[in-house]
Order: sequence, then structure tokens, then C-alpha cells
Amino acid sequence: MIHVDLNSDVGESYGNYVYGNDEEIMNYLTSVNIACGLHAGDPTVMRRTVELAHERNLVIGAHPGFPDLQGFGRRKMEVDPEEARDFVLYQIGALAALAKLRGQKLTHVALHGALSVMAKSDEALSGAIFKGIKEYDPELVFPGMPGLASYEVAKDLGLRVATIVYIDLDFRKDGSSIIERKKRGRDPKEIARKALKLVTGGKLETVDGVDKELKVDILLVHGDGPNAVDILKEMRSALQGAGVKIEPFPNFL
Amino acid sequence: MIHVDLNSDVGESYGNYVYGNDEEIMNYLTSVNIACGLHAGDPTVMRRTVELAHERNLVIGAHPGFPDLQGFGRRKMEVDPEEARDFVLYQIGALAALAKLRGQKLTHVALHGALSVMAKSDEALSGAIFKGIKEYDPELVFPGMPGLASYEVAKDLGLRVATIVYIDLDFRKDGSSIIERKKRGRDPKEIARKALKLVTGGKLETVDGVDKELKVDILLVHGDGPNAVDILKEMRSALQGAGVKIEPFPNFL
Amino acid sequence: MIHVDLNSDVGESYGNYVYGNDEEIMNYLTSVNIACGLHAGDPTVMRRTVELAHERNLVIGAHPGFPDLQGFGRRKMEVDPEEARDFVLYQIGALAALAKLRGQKLTHVALHGALSVMAKSDEALSGAIFKGIKEYDPELVFPGMPGLASYEVAKDLGLRVATIVYIDLDFRKDGSSIIERKKRGRDPKEIARKALKLVTGGKLETVDGVDKELKVDILLVHGDGPNAVDILKEMRSALQGAGVKIEPFPNFL
Amino acid sequence: MIHVDLNSDVGESYGNYVYGNDEEIMNYLTSVNIACGLHAGDPTVMRRTVELAHERNLVIGAHPGFPDLQGFGRRKMEVDPEEARDFVLYQIGALAALAKLRGQKLTHVALHGALSVMAKSDEALSGAIFKGIKEYDPELVFPGMPGLASYEVAKDLGLRVATIVYIDLDFRKDGSSIIERKKRGRDPKEIARKALKLVTGGKLETVDGVDKELKVDILLVHGDGPNAVDILKEMRSALQGAGVKIEPFPNFL
Repeated sequence: MIHVDLNSDVGESYGNYVYGNDEEIMNYLTSVNIACGLHAGDPTVMRRTVELAHERNLVIGAHPGFPDLQGFGRRKMEVDPEEARDFVLYQIGALAALAKLRGQKLTHVALHGALSVMAKSDEALSGAIFKGIKEYDPELVFPGMPGLASYEVAKDLGLRVATIVYIDLDFRKDGSSIIERKKRGRDPKEIARKALKLVTGGKLETVDGVDKELKVDILLVHGDGPNAVDILKEMRSALQGAGVKIEPFPNFL
Repeated sequence: MIHVDLNSDVGESYGNYVYGNDEEIMNYLTSVNIACGLHAGDPTVMRRTVELAHERNLVIGAHPGFPDLQGFGRRKMEVDPEEARDFVLYQIGALAALAKLRGQKLTHVALHGALSVMAKSDEALSGAIFKGIKEYDPELVFPGMPGLASYEVAKDLGLRVATIVYIDLDFRKDGSSIIERKKRGRDPKEIARKALKLVTGGKLETVDGVDKELKVDILLVHGDGPNAVDILKEMRSALQGAGVKIEPFPNFL
Repeated sequence: MIHVDLNSDVGESYGNYVYGNDEEIMNYLTSVNIACGLHAGDPTVMRRTVELAHERNLVIGAHPGFPDLQGFGRRKMEVDPEEARDFVLYQIGALAALAKLRGQKLTHVALHGALSVMAKSDEALSGAIFKGIKEYDPELVFPGMPGLASYEVAKDLGLRVATIVYIDLDFRKDGSSIIERKKRGRDPKEIARKALKLVTGGKLETVDGVDKELKVDILLVHGDGPNAVDILKEMRSALQGAGVKIEPFPNFL
Repeated sequence: MIHVDLNSDVGESYGNYVYGNDEEIMNYLTSVNIACGLHAGDPTVMRRTVELAHERNLVIGAHPGFPDLQGFGRRKMEVDPEEARDFVLYQIGALAALAKLRGQKLTHVALHGALSVMAKSDEALSGAIFKGIKEYDPELVFPGMPGLASYEVAKDLGLRVATIVYIDLDFRKDGSSIIERKKRGRDPKEIARKALKLVTGGKLETVDGVDKELKVDILLVHGDGPNAVDILKEMRSALQGAGVKIEPFPNFL
């Protein structure tokens, strides 16, 4: 039996600002990463997002980022590893409390934006962050990409890791994704085809023309893409048609 | 045996801004209320403050306030009770995570500034906040003043409550304290005398010329007052001279 | 010849958050009020909004609010009049500089949200704000409602005032508008009818069943309403069909 | 006749947080750079700082920084040149309005922290910023260090420039200063000696053992250093004893 988890970043609204379409997109997901108030999200948005996820039986994780609302956590910032660890723990704890209010527990931590990008190549930064996470709760899973510093450091420290692929982005053969400043629409059928090849065949297509061998656990679709719902529908249908079981990653990891 | 806890609000520095003199003042305390990043404090300040408190064997609580750094949480804001509850839970959770990183657990929640003032007379607000706190952790103690809405609501909901007196302020006979926009120095001997009368005699002096009967658990001294250390030294010495045991409130509550 | 100005609040996006549809709505306006970075807007959004307005030959004004991005400036805050005056001047100056960068000059100042609401009934607050505005630039026009404190104080201080009506809201017979927390769609034909009656007949319909006599200069449509563009199109066509000249208020005030 | 201006960064308090000792330090200065609300300062602090400077007949300039209060504008941020220009103009305009309220005009713009550091070696960044400043007000002076990108770009664009030396820091022979994360006390007599050698002899001592030829206009002392007042007193007395005229730079530039 092949399993896969469908995941997205959610809860990125703030005050009067609505971001993405969480209510609809969550209908097609099995897990979510919830923003924690520093790069996006506010306490009430976070609590409501927990409720929306809970109603749909999704598992929930924290999605901590840099304290930079204006830059949406996408601007690299000079921080030392201990400060970054403090930022991350602060955010995990804040979300954990609001989740507990609704009887929920966090299953994972997915780093956001520039913090994620920096951790992918900075072992000291990753070391401080994942040691902190482990001390806080050793059961928390880190979804990352094998071979990158964040994944390898988390794994070496004894944290559980999962392999996540941003299926609506393009990849290079080293496994790094090509991030776009402005999300563009993607062809749902094309994404579904790539997802199927990856999930059932273990091959990630790259822009370098070669496939990368990879056993994926989680497929992430960016909820702020213009046709995220269409992509998710098409992908679900293709995966289910091929007998893949779509379920929260804790069921099979 | 008579017991009392000496307490202060700490961790109110932010980034490059230093507020109060936590390192010294904590030498004379048995418990602290740590700001949680919305009205004051930042993740690194919070973690360091937990460390300072831990080194001195103090018990630690959360000190949540309104999301208003510029106003230091002292400006009343229009919020509905659910939003306020979300703010409070967010902050408690954030601090709890940083405390857990250092092996510490929160013992209490002391509301800050305008949020505290509003909760003292608003049962709906207090109801939402204390129900939330109870759902998050029913062991958390609320230090308040008997007769005020926040204390009575917390108690009715089944939370443990303690009686706290801001010993360096003046009181009216209804138990309300007279808050000053700008802290002024107080005569340490005079404060020590009032503290002794309250702790050993059960009488709180008021500006109305009558004493209010009160069994106090916690004496709070404002750490941003100009002579907080002198007041604490004098008060400790007076209380200890009278045989009062100064210790963290969980030891005797 | 009857003249009227069509106006809206714009530039309320922030960082990654898009708010309203400024580019389209501005095609139907003659003046705009641009948010200034405290309740909404950021420096780059402000500069781009000035450019959009300039391309369409709109006159531009500042739209200052409380420093409360999370609450979108809609939560009342405790401020003293001098502080409010400082907030307002700060924001006007910031926008004026970005406007000057594009060769533009501010024509007016329209208060936002809770600050506007509070100023409508608080003479001391209005006094401080409008004295400050007058000292900064006595040519700036204040669009308000005759009879309310903000309008009357501004006028008494010698500032130029214009009469603005939020034509997509309902009004009481005292001239106050009924603000809705969540904007709902309005029937464009109905709004157009009310606008025509007001502009050509000098009568503002109220929910109290009586009309209020009023000579209006500016009709404001809320750009964040679900069908703002439809309302503006219908209203323009009705007004122009009746021979009303739609143009920036400085042309006729 | 030799002239020099004594200058400091001021107005860096925020809300309840007091930073430095502006009231006293300004007694020894002839010009100040006032923070503008993004890295430090708030509208009321800014207005009060203008008043304090005006009472002492100091000339005032803007001190814009990155929008990062938590990092005090000292963390490098990824921004594109146009965004940085917008940040800078926003801040200059905000301060200019509060200055105009008190009948004052800005004479200069001194970049703060990481924005200043980045502009010193980034011509594109400096180009966008100084073109913006020139379009806003071509009379504004930029105090910088000859040879660095910010100074040279500003000069090439036709802005007036002044030579500023952070006299309480150490310098390398290329003219770059050695910035310390935490300010330490400096020997006032030693600083006064170096100031005298620079002002009267045109030689800047460097840690590389050689002197750099330099005609200085402005000596900056960091107001948050532990003995800034002592340094300023000693330096003033040494300079005046040598016949140097201490006065605002617009008098002699």
C-alpha cells in the first residue's frame, strides 16, 4: 500500500487581511502548517485555523517564520542561531496553546520562508533550532528534503523527519526547489502527472532533465497559488485512481 | 507560621531596549510574572528571563497583555472576549515553550496593564479568559484581588486563585489600587511597615483612612519604580524579623 | 452646474497582503484617501498608490489612522489629543514625501476608522488634530459631516472643509452613518438613486424615514465592499445622465 | 578659523522605553539625527525631540533606518533599492511634518544602522536612496565618509555632502569604522586628543598605525555610550581651547 499526505501552509491571514482560501483548500488536505503570528497569522486567526483543521480531521503543525510581517517572513534577516531558536520555540508554544484549547496537539514543525531557506544550508542555525524543538517535544516531526542541512541535522539529532515535496514548484537535480516571488497558475493535469510519478514511481522530475530518486511522504501545494484547489482536486483524483491512500502522515510514517 | 511570596513583573525589555533591572531585583523575589512579547518582551528576552529566574529558584508565571508595544499594553483596546482569550493563550503558550526549553513550568498567569484593569470589572471578558486558561492548564494559579470580577470569575470557574497586593501603591477601601502613570519613589520603611501590618495583621491600609481586612499571599513590588530594590530589601528584613517565611506561593497556597 | 467628487479609501494593502482592488476602482474616482502605514499601507504601497492615482489624474489626500495594523485602525484606543495629533502629522508628512517624489501634493486629510469616529464627538481631540494640520499646511481640506465635532472644529479653526457622504452606508437623521463591521453588497441602482437625490436634490435619505437637507461635495464608496465597482459605474452613469459634473473637489470647492 | 559640528543620534526612545539621555547630551551638541519611527522613535518621541533640539538651537536631520524595531535597525535585511528609497522618504517626510509643526526644517539625512552599513558598499542602493532624497529636497545634506559608496554616490548626484567621523569608535586606514555590538566606555581625554588632531591637524588616527588625511565637518558621539556626556564635555573644552569654533554645520559648510 502506498500512502501520501497532502499538505499546505495555512492561517496566514492577519487582522483584517485575508490570505488564501483556507476553508476551501483544507477540504482537500490531510495536514496543514499553521502560521504563528510573526510573519503572518494572529492569535484569533490561529485559533480559527485550528478549528477549521479539526473539523476536517487534519493533523496540524506549526509554521514559524521570522518576525517580519511586512516582508511576510520572506526577507533574510541576520539572526544568531540562539535567537532563531527562541523565535521558533515562541511560535510553536503559542500555537500549541491555542491548539490545546481545542483539544488538539501539534504533530510537526515546518519552517517558513527565509528562515526555512537559511536553515537548508546552515548547520549551526539548524542545529540550534532542532535541538530546541527536540527539548521542547521530541515527538514533533520535521518535514524536509533529504540532503539539505535542515533535514540532515534534524535527523542526526534524533528528531523524526518526513520527506516533503513542494509539488507545484520546479526542482533542480540537487533536490532544491525554484522559488518564485509571485506564484503563477500551474496546469493541474501536469502537476497530477508529476505527483503520480513521484508517489508511485519514486521519481521527482527536475528542470535539469533527469529524475531524482525520492521516497516522498508529503506533497505540499501552495495555498496562495491562483489555482491551488484545481491542482489538489486533480491530484487527489489521479492518486486515488492509482490506489494511493491519501492520509495524514502520522498514520504511516 | 505565616508565609508570603514576593513578586514582580519582569522580562519587559525588548530588543535593544532595557527595562527595569531584572537581574538585581530578582535576588529579592520568590516569584515573577514574565512579559510575553505583545506589550513587552521578545522571545530572547523571555528565554533569558526564564534562565535568570531559574538560577534564583523563583517560580515563574506568564504576564500577558494587549498587542500594543508602543503603548506598553497600558492603553485600553476594544476587543471582544474571545479575541482577548486568544491573545492570552497565545502568550502563555509562547512562554511555556521557552520555559520548557529550560526545564521549567509555569505556575501562574498575572494579567498586565489595561487588560488586567478591564478584566477587573468585566465578567464576560474575565469569563472568556479564565475558561481558556482552565482548558489549557487547570493548575495555573491566578493572583488577583478578592471582590473584583477577574478574581471572582476565575475562582467560580474552579481555577486556583491567590491574593496579590501591589504593596507599593495606594489602595481605596474597596480594594482597588490607585495606578500612577509615572512611578514615583516610595519610602522603603513606610512600605515595609504597611507590608508587615498586612502580612502579619491581615489589614490593608487604604487612603480612605480605614483598613481593609485581607489575607494576602503575594506582595508585588513594581520593578520599574525608582527604588524597587531598596523597598524589597527593607520589606524582606522587616518581614523576616517578624518571623514571616518568604517563599514561592506554591509552597503554601 | 452641479459638481460632485467621487472618492474612496485606497492604499490599504500591506506587504504581501492585498486589500481591495485599487487599480480598478480608481478608474471611477476623482479623489482618493491614501492609508499612511499605521493602520494599513506601507511605504512601497503608498508610493505605488500615488502613482496609480497620478496616472488617472486623481487628487490625493492622507488617510491617517491609529497605529494598530492588527485591528486595521478600527479599535478605539486611549490616546491623549497631543499624541493623536502627532500620529496624524507623522502620517501626513510620510505620505507627502512619497507624493512629492512623484511631483504630487496632498489636497486633503480624511481621518480613518476609530480615530475618525472618536474625533466626530470629541472636541479636544479634534482641536489638537486640526490645529496641528493647520500649522503644517493650512491649504489642506478636511472632508467631514456638518454638525459633527470634527467638521465644526476644523471649520472654526479656519481650515477648509468639504461635506463628504459615505453613500454606500445608511444614515440616521442626525447625519451619523451606521458602520458595519463586515461590508455587505449594496444594490447599485438603489445607491445611484440615493446619490442622485442627494447631489441634485440636496436630500440625504435616512433610516429614520426623514430626509436630511445637505449640500454634498464628495461621495465616498467603500472600496472593500463586495461590489464597489458596480456601484461606482451605476452612480457615475446616473449622475452624468442628470448633468452632474464629476470632478476633483478642488475644482469647485 | 576652524569649525566643527558636534552631532549625535537622538530620539531613539519608543513608547515606554527610554533610550539614551537626550536632554542632557543635547546640551553639548550643535546638530542631531532624529530617529523616525521604523527602527526607533515614535511620533510623540519625535515631536518632543524636535522641541528639545529647538530649545537648544540645534539643527536637526532625519535618521531613517530599516523597519525593524526589535532589531533596532541593526539587522541587515533583503530589500530592493526602490523599497529602501520608499522607507527613507517615508521617514524623512514624517519627521519633516513634526518639525514643521514646531517651525523647524530638516537640514540633513543620516542613515541608520544596517541601512547605513549596506549603503556604504552598495551603489545601486545608494543611488535609489539619494536620487529619492534629491527629488524630495535637494537642499538636504548627507553626512558620510569620502571614498565610501554612499558618500560618493550622493555627491555625484549633486547632493551636498559633509564629512562625519564617529569619533568615539576606532577606524581602519580605509576610513571604515569598527562597529561594536555593545558600546563600551571610552577615555574622554583620549577621544578629545584624537578629535583635536583630526579637527586641527586633518589626521584621523587608525588602528592600523597610520593616520588618514581627512577634513572633517562633523564629529559624532554615540549617545548610548556609557560616558557620552563626559566625552562631549572634554572634547568641547579641548577644541574650544584650541580656538576651534563649534557650531552647526550649515554655518560653515
